[in-house]
Amino acid sequence: MLDRIFKLERYNDLLESHQRFLEFETCGIHYKQVPIINLLLRKGESTQAELARQLHVSRASVAKSIQRLEKDGYVCRTQDDPSKSSRYSKVTLSVSGYERALAVKSVVEKGELAKFEGFSDEELSIYYSFLERINYNLLKCDELCKTK
Amino acid sequence: MLDRIFKLERYNDLLESHQRFLEFETCGIHYKQVPIINLLLRKGESTQAELARQLHVSRASVAKSIQRLEKDGYVCRTQDDPSKSSRYSKVTLSVSGYERALAVKSVVEKGELAKFEGFSDEELSIYYSFLERINYNLLKCDELCKTK
Repeated sequence: MLDRIFKLERYNDLLESHQRFLEFETCGIHYKQVPIINLLLRKGESTQAELARQLHVSRASVAKSIQRLEKDGYVCRTQDDPSKSSRYSKVTLSVSGYERALAVKSVVEKGELAKFEGFSDEELSIYYSFLERINYNLLKCDELCKTK
Repeated sequence: MLDRIFKLERYNDLLESHQRFLEFETCGIHYKQVPIINLLLRKGESTQAELARQLHVSRASVAKSIQRLEKDGYVCRTQDDPSKSSRYSKVTLSVSGYERALAVKSVVEKGELAKFEGFSDEELSIYYSFLERINYNLLKCDELCKTK
């Protein structure tokens, strides 16, 4: 049974990321930039250094994404202190970026709803309790890894 | 409830890939090269073009991985026809690569077992049936995406 579970988990992951990829393409955004867009939507503004820290990616990779998002009109930068390097400048969504970010968010939410179509509240609760137990097991493994 | 499910799904995914990453590092292999190792373990030998096709990645990316795996002593190449380009040469695991590939495989399997520790057979069946229904929903979305 475990073997079948892993195969189906992998297949579902693949289907999900493929769909997400296509949907983001329709919104005219690269899927790798969605986390930045979502963070800016939540926080209003941020710096490149802060974005890199919160998304657990390198500053170079954030800088590249911001450059692309700026070119595509999603974000704009403001420099409080001109003596500081550009990585300290604030990044914020442009008006059109804000509207498109909301569209991206609604696309994600629609996909998430469709994924669990037909599930009753009770079934969702059971599924959630499984996820909690998997989470417990994974955290236990994590502790073991760290003490090795 | 759906919101909590998505958060926990994402958190579990993150934990799982982080653990896999650390475990592969212990085996001295980059996680990106694991699919190639696994495929060679199953098939015995392959060409770069074949590997690229089966793993749905570019030939350039396979070429880079094979170069690294060859340098690390995991794989060796044989050239049947010297008049042909190197991308037609056969790639196979070396003896030491084969042993290390088995170690990688057992690490993955151990992690998979630990993930479902404490689950009864009946609970695994229920979890599997949830995955089947999610799969059905995702495939339905996929069809919708294609007809758009």
